[in-house]
Amino acid sequence: MSGGLGVWQDMEKERETLQAWKERVEQELDRVVAFWMEHSHDQEHGGFFTCLGRDGRVYDDLKYVWLQGRQVWMYCHLYRKFERFRRPELLDSAKAGGEFLLRYARVAPPEKKCAFVLTRDGRPVKVQRTIFSECFYTMAMNELWRVTGEARYQDEAVEMMDQIVRWVREDPSGLGRPQLPGALASEPMAVPMMLLNLVEQLGESDEELAGNYAELADWCAQRILRHVQRDGQAVLENVSEGGEELSGCLGRHQNPGHALEAGWFLLRHAIRKGDPELRAHVVDKFLLLPFRSGWDPDHGGLFYFQDADGLCPTQLEWAMKLWWPHSEAMIAFLMGYSDSGDPTLLRLFYQVAEYTFRQFRDPEYGEWFGYLNREGTVALTIKGGPFKAPGLTAFYCPPSRSQRT
Amino acid sequence: MSGGLGVWQDMEKERETLQAWKERVEQELDRVVAFWMEHSHDQEHGGFFTCLGRDGRVYDDLKYVWLQGRQVWMYCHLYRKFERFRRPELLDSAKAGGEFLLRYARVAPPEKKCAFVLTRDGRPVKVQRTIFSECFYTMAMNELWRVTGEARYQDEAVEMMDQIVRWVREDPSGLGRPQLPGALASEPMAVPMMLLNLVEQLGESDEELAGNYAELADWCAQRILRHVQRDGQAVLENVSEGGEELSGCLGRHQNPGHALEAGWFLLRHAIRKGDPELRAHVVDKFLLLPFRSGWDPDHGGLFYFQDADGLCPTQLEWAMKLWWPHSEAMIAFLMGYSDSGDPTLLRLFYQVAEYTFRQFRDPEYGEWFGYLNREGTVALTIKGGPFKAPGLTAFYCPPSRSQRT
Repeated sequence: MSGGLGVWQDMEKERETLQAWKERVEQELDRVVAFWMEHSHDQEHGGFFTCLGRDGRVYDDLKYVWLQGRQVWMYCHLYRKFERFRRPELLDSAKAGGEFLLRYARVAPPEKKCAFVLTRDGRPVKVQRTIFSECFYTMAMNELWRVTGEARYQDEAVEMMDQIVRWVREDPSGLGRPQLPGALASEPMAVPMMLLNLVEQLGESDEELAGNYAELADWCAQRILRHVQRDGQAVLENVSEGGEELSGCLGRHQNPGHALEAGWFLLRHAIRKGDPELRAHVVDKFLLLPFRSGWDPDHGGLFYFQDADGLCPTQLEWAMKLWWPHSEAMIAFLMGYSDSGDPTLLRLFYQVAEYTFRQFRDPEYGEWFGYLNREGTVALTIKGGPFKAPGLTAFYCPPSRSQRT
Repeated sequence: MSGGLGVWQDMEKERETLQAWKERVEQELDRVVAFWMEHSHDQEHGGFFTCLGRDGRVYDDLKYVWLQGRQVWMYCHLYRKFERFRRPELLDSAKAGGEFLLRYARVAPPEKKCAFVLTRDGRPVKVQRTIFSECFYTMAMNELWRVTGEARYQDEAVEMMDQIVRWVREDPSGLGRPQLPGALASEPMAVPMMLLNLVEQLGESDEELAGNYAELADWCAQRILRHVQRDGQAVLENVSEGGEELSGCLGRHQNPGHALEAGWFLLRHAIRKGDPELRAHVVDKFLLLPFRSGWDPDHGGLFYFQDADGLCPTQLEWAMKLWWPHSEAMIAFLMGYSDSGDPTLLRLFYQVAEYTFRQFRDPEYGEWFGYLNREGTVALTIKGGPFKAPGLTAFYCPPSRSQRT
C-alpha cells in the first residue's frame, strides 16, 4: 500500500513540476513577445528591425531576412495556436512583415534567390549562397496563408519550396557557389534538416501536400540519418555525397545543437509515420548521444562546436554557449518524453531548462541574451542581431499538447 | 652631480632592459622557427602544412595560401637579414614553398586570382573575394627574388602587384564580389594598409621600383588617414568611398590591431619620407589612440573588435585576445620609440610585451597560442590554423637596428 502511495506521490510531484515549468515557459513567452512587439516594428517601411540592443534600442537598421521570416512565422503561429495571442496587432504586424518580404526579399525577381540582409527600405546588401533565407521565407508565407486564408501567400510558399527542392536535389548552380576542383562534395546536415522541417510545416493538416512531399520527407530523414557515423558513436555535421565521413576538420566537425534540432524534426517525422524503431534510434543517436558529448561537464551548457576526435576546433567561438541549441534541446527532450514517457528524457529537459532559464534570461530588460562564454557569463549583450532571433525561439512551435494553452 | 648620475643610471638601466628584451625576442624567434621547421614541411607535395595542433601535429592537411606566402616570406627574410638564420634548409624550404605557390596558388592561370585554401596536392578549395591571398603571394615572391636573385620570382611579384593595384584603384570586378544596390560602397582600412606594406616591401633598396610606386604610397597613406574620424577621436575600420563615416555597425566597427598595424606601416612611410608632422600624427592617432581605447582595463590585452559608440559588437569573438594585434603593437611602439625616443612609447612596448610573453607563449611545446578568451586563458590550443600564422609573426620584419643580430 505504502509503495503504491509513493508512486502516486511521485507522479503527483512530477505533474506539479511539469505544470510549474509550463507556467514559467508561458510567462517567458509573453515577455519575449512583448519585447519584440515593443521594439522591432518598423512603422515606416514595414518589416522588423532585427538588431536590438540589451534594452531594445535599434543599433543598426539593417534587416536580416532569416529573422524577418522567423518573426512573421512566430507571430502567425502564436496567433493560430494560442488563444491568448489571438490579437489583431500580432496579425497586422505579421502581414506587414510578409508584405515587406514579398516586395523585397528576392534579389532579382522573378528569380527566387533571396537576400541574406536588406537595408531598412529593402535594398539587398548581402546574399548567402545557401538555401536558408528561402527556407525562412517559405515558413513565413505558409503560416501567413494559414492565418489569413489568402491563397497568394500559399502560392508563394509552394513555389519557393519547389525551387529549394530543385536546388538541393537537382541543380545547385542557382545558389551561386563556384565549383572548385579541390572542394569536397559534402552535404551539411542543416540542408536535409531544414527541408524536413519545411515538409512538416507545409504538410500540417494538408493531406494533399503531405502526400506530395511524402517521398521527400523520407529522403530527408534518410539523408539526416547518414550523418550518424563511426559505428553510431558520433553525429557529424558534414558527410560526403555518398554518405561517408570526410577527411580533415570539415569531416570531424560537430554541432550538438544541430544534432538535437535534427533529432526533434526526425522524431516528429517518426511519430507521424508511426515508426517505433526509428523513434528509438532518433532518441538514442540524436538526443542522448549529442547531449552526452556536447554538454560541458565543468560549466554546464552545450558547446557550440566540437571535433569528433576531441581535437581543438578552429572556430574561435567553439566553446561558447548559444541560446538556440538550448531551446532545441528543451524541445527535443520534452518531445521525446511526451512520446515515450521515458523519465531520463524528462530529467534531461529539466537539466537543460534550468541552465537555460538561469543563464540566458535577462530579468532586467526582458528577452534573452544569445551568447555566453564558456563559463556562462554574458559575452554579447545584444537581444537581436544578424543571427540572434527571439529567445525561447523554438518553443514557438509547441512540441506537445502539454505546451498549449 | 647626483642628478647627472641618476640620469646616467636610468639610461643604463633602460639599456639593460632593452637588451634583455632583445634576448627574449631572439630566443623566442628561434623556438618559433624551430617549431615550424620541425612540423610544417610537406616533403611529398612541397609547401607547408598550416594546421598544426598544440604539439605540432598536423590536424588537417589543407594548405592556407595566406600562410604559405607568409612562411616563404619569413624564411627568406630571416635568411637575408639575420646571420644566424643563414642556413641552407631555410632557403630550400622557402624555395619549395615558393614553387608550390607558383604552381598551384592561382585558381585559373593565367588569371591572377589566387585561392584562399588548397588541398595538400594543390587543388583550390575556396577563393576569397579580396586581395589578401595575392598580397601574401607577392611578398613571398619578392623575398624569394631577394635571396635567390632569380628574376622569375620578381617578375611574378611585380605582375601580381600590378594586378592588385588595378583591382583596388581601377576595377574590382575580377575579385568576384557581386554589386548589390543596398551594399554601401565602403573601403576597409585593410586594403590601403596592405598595399602600403607591399610598396615598402617591393621598394626596399630598389630606387626604380620605389620611384614607380611613390604616388601609390602617398595615395595609400592618404586613404589610411581618412579612417581617422570623429574629430580625430576614433580610427574606424570602414569608411565610405568619399572618406566619410558609414552608418550602422559597419561604420562603427573598430579593429585596434589593424589600427596599430596601419600605424607602423604609416610610420615607416613617414620616416622614409622625412615627414615629422606625419610621424607625430601617426603616433597620436594610430598608436596611442587605438591602444587607449583597445586595451582591456580589467584583464589586459587588446580587444579584437570594438564599436566606436561603445555598443556591443555583433562578432562573437569581439572580446577575445589574439596573438597578432599584440605583435603589431610591440613593433609599433618599439618603432615609435626608436624613431622619437619618447619614453611613453617604450613603456607601452613593455606593457604589451609583458602581457604577450606571459599569455601567448607555450613553454611546454613551443610556439604561441593564438586565441585567448577575454580573461586571458587559452581558448584554442592550435598553433597553426586557417589564419593562425607563426607566433611573434610581425617581429620577423625587424623594426629597428636594435632588433637585428
